[in-house]
Amino acid sequence: MTATGRTPGRRPGGPDTRGEIVQAARESFADKGFAATSIRAVARQAGVDAALVHHYFDSKDELFIEAMAIPVDPRRIAAQIVDGPRDEIGRRIATVFLGVWESPDGQQRMKALFRSVVTSDEVARMMREGITQMIIQPVAQVLDVPDAQLRVGLVATQLVGTAIVRYLVGLEPIASIDIETLIDRLAPVLQLHLTG
Amino acid sequence: MTATGRTPGRRPGGPDTRGEIVQAARESFADKGFAATSIRAVARQAGVDAALVHHYFDSKDELFIEAMAIPVDPRRIAAQIVDGPRDEIGRRIATVFLGVWESPDGQQRMKALFRSVVTSDEVARMMREGITQMIIQPVAQVLDVPDAQLRVGLVATQLVGTAIVRYLVGLEPIASIDIETLIDRLAPVLQLHLTG
Repeated sequence: MTATGRTPGRRPGGPDTRGEIVQAARESFADKGFAATSIRAVARQAGVDAALVHHYFDSKDELFIEAMAIPVDPRRIAAQIVDGPRDEIGRRIATVFLGVWESPDGQQRMKALFRSVVTSDEVARMMREGITQMIIQPVAQVLDVPDAQLRVGLVATQLVGTAIVRYLVGLEPIASIDIETLIDRLAPVLQLHLTG
Repeated sequence: MTATGRTPGRRPGGPDTRGEIVQAARESFADKGFAATSIRAVARQAGVDAALVHHYFDSKDELFIEAMAIPVDPRRIAAQIVDGPRDEIGRRIATVFLGVWESPDGQQRMKALFRSVVTSDEVARMMREGITQMIIQPVAQVLDVPDAQLRVGLVATQLVGTAIVRYLVGLEPIASIDIETLIDRLAPVLQLHLTG
């Protein structure tokens, strides 16, 4: 035992353990990327047992969502998008994506996330890997066409641009148009990207 | 005359005069916005004669382009877009916009500009005003429909998102797809935004 009552090396959960795991995960995602990061490696880096990481986080995905401060679970988003008629997928995507941005808390956190991604190459690398695995690939899979990943990527361009123009740049009339009209305009365009 | 050989207040052009005019313009665009900034006011702030500002810059538009370090003349972009058949305007927009980004110098400068716009509310305010006057309104005018400005705004969302996803985030396959394919994919979507 040290003077602070903590043993060095592996140790049971303390008040800061969860935060230390998240910090270790953030470092691993930054250093090695999403694919090469494992629960086991994060545990080693945090100096705790892998079982303790599993106690706080069910999966690497959850660690990533927490480490990147993503305000919504991308896997839930992906599930909402793919669940329903194929010819309404454009509308579902617009509704789900803008729904996150229209909540005050979601908007604040998404703004911070977008600003980090656009200004930091490291954050951009982490995000594009994680988002590809958690949301782009699952959505591309249900499309079941050869160029599905390109199509979903094009959807991403339309969504990212809408968020930036409306919420970060505030360009009119996009910034203040009611959300129903915006969804009505985006839905056919997203549908064209995906199935046109 | 002062010890440095320069008179205070109004003075003729010196080696740094052009730069000082640009700096004064930047401050005026930031403080008062695009519409309320005039050549006369910029001259006053820079401590030079309005004729000297006109010697370097033909118009307030040119001062703005220089002050914001915009790598292309938005008025030339607007002219290229509106000049041609209406049913090919989507393709012209994609070609002209991505042409700027595909040149190495243009890409570097556009990246810097986009990062400033996304992270600084002040730069965002200046840009949205200037871009609205120099590019969005002229393009909206030739469309000649009631919701033209909304349509051009939607085009902006698609373009901004494409640039960010391809050049700043580097999301695959958008990042490395050949430019002709990307234009082929964007053209019908931009056309739908504008005339659909």
